[in-house]
Amino acid sequence: MTDGFTFRIDARDGHARKGEIITPRGTIPTPAFMPVGTRASVKALSPDEIFQSGASILLGNTYHLMLRPGEELIAKAGGLARFMAWHKPTLTDSGGFQVFSLSDRVKITDDGVVFASHIDGSRIELSPERAVQVQGRLGSDIAMILDECPPGDAPRKDVENAMRRTTLWARRQITVERPAGQALFGIVQGSIHEDLRRVHLAEIAALPFDGIALGGLSVGEPIEDMYRIFHDIAPLMPAERPRYVMGVGTPADLLEAIENGIDMFDCVMPTRNARNGQVFVKGGKLNIKQARFLNDPSPLEPGCQCPTCTTYERRYLRHLFMSRELLIHRLLTIHNLHHYGSLMAGARTAIANGQFAEFKKSWLTPRDI
Amino acid sequence: MTDGFTFRIDARDGHARKGEIITPRGTIPTPAFMPVGTRASVKALSPDEIFQSGASILLGNTYHLMLRPGEELIAKAGGLARFMAWHKPTLTDSGGFQVFSLSDRVKITDDGVVFASHIDGSRIELSPERAVQVQGRLGSDIAMILDECPPGDAPRKDVENAMRRTTLWARRQITVERPAGQALFGIVQGSIHEDLRRVHLAEIAALPFDGIALGGLSVGEPIEDMYRIFHDIAPLMPAERPRYVMGVGTPADLLEAIENGIDMFDCVMPTRNARNGQVFVKGGKLNIKQARFLNDPSPLEPGCQCPTCTTYERRYLRHLFMSRELLIHRLLTIHNLHHYGSLMAGARTAIANGQFAEFKKSWLTPRDI
Repeated sequence: MTDGFTFRIDARDGHARKGEIITPRGTIPTPAFMPVGTRASVKALSPDEIFQSGASILLGNTYHLMLRPGEELIAKAGGLARFMAWHKPTLTDSGGFQVFSLSDRVKITDDGVVFASHIDGSRIELSPERAVQVQGRLGSDIAMILDECPPGDAPRKDVENAMRRTTLWARRQITVERPAGQALFGIVQGSIHEDLRRVHLAEIAALPFDGIALGGLSVGEPIEDMYRIFHDIAPLMPAERPRYVMGVGTPADLLEAIENGIDMFDCVMPTRNARNGQVFVKGGKLNIKQARFLNDPSPLEPGCQCPTCTTYERRYLRHLFMSRELLIHRLLTIHNLHHYGSLMAGARTAIANGQFAEFKKSWLTPRDI
Repeated sequence: MTDGFTFRIDARDGHARKGEIITPRGTIPTPAFMPVGTRASVKALSPDEIFQSGASILLGNTYHLMLRPGEELIAKAGGLARFMAWHKPTLTDSGGFQVFSLSDRVKITDDGVVFASHIDGSRIELSPERAVQVQGRLGSDIAMILDECPPGDAPRKDVENAMRRTTLWARRQITVERPAGQALFGIVQGSIHEDLRRVHLAEIAALPFDGIALGGLSVGEPIEDMYRIFHDIAPLMPAERPRYVMGVGTPADLLEAIENGIDMFDCVMPTRNARNGQVFVKGGKLNIKQARFLNDPSPLEPGCQCPTCTTYERRYLRHLFMSRELLIHRLLTIHNLHHYGSLMAGARTAIANGQFAEFKKSWLTPRDI
């Protein structure tokens, strides 16, 4: 394990675990949700607002950052956390997921990926080694291995090949030098096939990664299949290392994963949906543009203690949205991240009290709002 | 004068005055700059951030607010200040300026203005009486009369007719009932002609308005002409009432006007220019997209105590701008409003100390930055 990186569990409730990850830049209570700061910014939010939402770590996208402003500039600025004045733990993905979803003319071989930048079309190579080196320059507290993530409906043969390649790459990446204190997590593929997931988990868990992630979920597969993988695979992941599900999901998805023993999450949903007017509330969601909010003096979510709900009325928020005022993105993002932050804080308390099942049920119960 | 509305001067330095305006919703130290919150929002900023910039009053645009969300909704929400959670003094313009600059098929007669909304083309009438009534529903602390503002290059005959109509309307508007505590300011037209300005000032000052504004400046006329009007007309405005120059201007313009005895300002420049990357600094301005900031670890303006300058480096701000990240609008707007707020606070101190001329010179001296 990496020096300066520690994970300890201090409570369990069934498979669910409450604990903390300690990194040189700070402590992360788990289960933890990581807001996504794609281009070194959680869109429209200040570092204070991100922290006050309950987040103790955020995620940066290596693909975006290596293209602009480039990892060398961020290294000169003292690393991602310092560059964006966050000064707390960060995790970087490897860039692989965005290479596949955003760039053009992607060519993948056992040597790595070659692709055309979506910004200027320039030809870029990303080998497994370079993915780790770039994250070293970005100076995140937790780096992720470059993996191959097939689409949710990929044929079994393609999934098997992606697993083979991901393991090959994983073995090469674990030996790449990293800055002091930077942890490296492995990623398990295998799509919706339990047998493949088990095989791949064994291969990845055999390497001395500081944590293990499930990749290749929420990529188009039916939700029941994702839940089945949570249920069958998460409890088999090494208990003494943090378990992370990448790119997932709704509050229901997160609760389902926590119940099966997952510790970490990231997802663009609370931030991206906010920019479309979609607001998470206990038991469901609402869209601020609905006509019923035209003259509604209630807060976005009655009872919510976030800065948006304690300051503004729905009728004002709707006006801002309809008028396309910049402020609305910020106010709805604050609420949605606070929703996710409260979900995590509530889950931690519930696990400590042995009441996770009740907490999950109560959070998801639809209510009039 | 309106009950609950007071203006007192506590220091003078030449023509320059330092004082305060007291309204039922709060006290406004003068000289004062009012940030523009066009659609009930100073773009991208929270009320706290606006206040922390040094602003004690902000301006709302009646034209925009009457079209969306409508003055009735804002009245139901308790007025503009409460609607936007600002809870401090506000001033509303009459809507006239935007009618002329934004809407289509404008027809102006002695009865008022008829125009087509720029949002949906609907036909809207704005009489002088209605302009005051709408502002009564908006519940601003200071309302402005509907006036006719000719372009900066209008022939003298058109300027004279606009003056005639503005006086006609002013006499009708002063008798319209307003909510308790809401002040009403008159507006002086006359373009760049001193003789016309003097005549019109006498007509407007003869009515019991709570304050007097100079309109029709910064509408395309040469800057020397505007300064000449400041110099020749401002000292003639009634000394015991607040003096306001509408829609002006750069820091240099504001200092020039204060020197001649003006107390209040509004302008979109600090907020709008921020969104284009333009940053006000003492002695000039800079644009954050300039290549020289690529790896510059300095704050936006060394020595500035605004939240943006005490938190972020130029290289990060440039990255946000180049990546079109929403956060940049907020961070640059905070700095620019802080620049204007500091300019006003500095002017007040300098007037109290009898050092306004030195202050003005020092603020405008170009420096390497």
